[in-house]
Amino acid sequence: MKELEERIRKDGRVLGKDVLKVDSFLNHQVDPMLMERMGEEFYNHFKDAGINKILTVESSGIAPAVMTGLKFQVPVVFARKHKSVTLTDDLYTSEVYSFTKKTSNHISIDKRFLSKDDTVLIIDDFLANGQAVNGLDTIIEDAGATLAGIGIVIEKSFQKGRQLIDKSGTPIYSLARIKAFENGQVVFQDEEE
Amino acid sequence: MKELEERIRKDGRVLGKDVLKVDSFLNHQVDPMLMERMGEEFYNHFKDAGINKILTVESSGIAPAVMTGLKFQVPVVFARKHKSVTLTDDLYTSEVYSFTKKTSNHISIDKRFLSKDDTVLIIDDFLANGQAVNGLDTIIEDAGATLAGIGIVIEKSFQKGRQLIDKSGTPIYSLARIKAFENGQVVFQDEEE
Repeated sequence: MKELEERIRKDGRVLGKDVLKVDSFLNHQVDPMLMERMGEEFYNHFKDAGINKILTVESSGIAPAVMTGLKFQVPVVFARKHKSVTLTDDLYTSEVYSFTKKTSNHISIDKRFLSKDDTVLIIDDFLANGQAVNGLDTIIEDAGATLAGIGIVIEKSFQKGRQLIDKSGTPIYSLARIKAFENGQVVFQDEEE
Repeated sequence: MKELEERIRKDGRVLGKDVLKVDSFLNHQVDPMLMERMGEEFYNHFKDAGINKILTVESSGIAPAVMTGLKFQVPVVFARKHKSVTLTDDLYTSEVYSFTKKTSNHISIDKRFLSKDDTVLIIDDFLANGQAVNGLDTIIEDAGATLAGIGIVIEKSFQKGRQLIDKSGTPIYSLARIKAFENGQVVFQDEEE
């Protein structure tokens, strides 16, 4: 998505070797008009996949997921993060390791909001090592639901998440794909690749 | 907002004396179409207040806030919650006590995203004792910004938050005002009151 790449070039800040901060338009301050156009982009890509539910993880996934849900006219469920979780019969849970923060979180979804009748699109702000997507996928399997696709706002293609998803065969669409950071600058994958 | 009141009657669950769960359409599963109509409602009410920024708190405030930002065509900033916060020069912070969870959280906003040039509308999912609004108000004052109004999805009018805001003189608009819970049922304020 050209507009998003330009916005990342203009407002993103590269920190160290593999961190990109986009807190001025995506995950602290949010640009709702950009979110709406992103939702449209995800809708156009996945509109024939039979999706009836959007899944994401709090907090940064919520804005793009809700705009995507609006375009699909379907409900959005955001998984809750917990430091620890008391296992109950009411929740689907899984563990998500954060390489950035070097800590584990549990994520959970109330069983009332996911079932075998659901065909799900996962939306998330970042794809790096694929931990969050993997955690949601575990929950989707536990619920007997169907994972129809994964929509990512910003993919760091040089980390292993993309490769893992490609191997799994799940359709994935990332609005911006970053090949590398070079001298503090973002290098995007060529669109032909 | 009639549609919201009907939705609360249909899908809300009253727990004990003062808890209303609306996790099927507002704060776990989200109905994006309802969020959009709520954003429109807030826009119609506050459209002449000169608002150039929406403020909320993660996570449940994000969906209604982003839809409101879309209608106003202005950025949304969501305050981050922390168990503890290392004070730095980069952040505005304040403390928020949760009566439900009986714990204190800190909330913070990066100084780059709030300044004396901002005229702010606070959007939040619930108003009970007014702690979250109060925390955001402290941050707005620290930044030298102007608080132009407060938009609340569900107000529990029998708790003290509404009274405190009325005393402060800040314009407030709540889409649903709950007078009491009686026998597990929600009683709304009459619209004439």
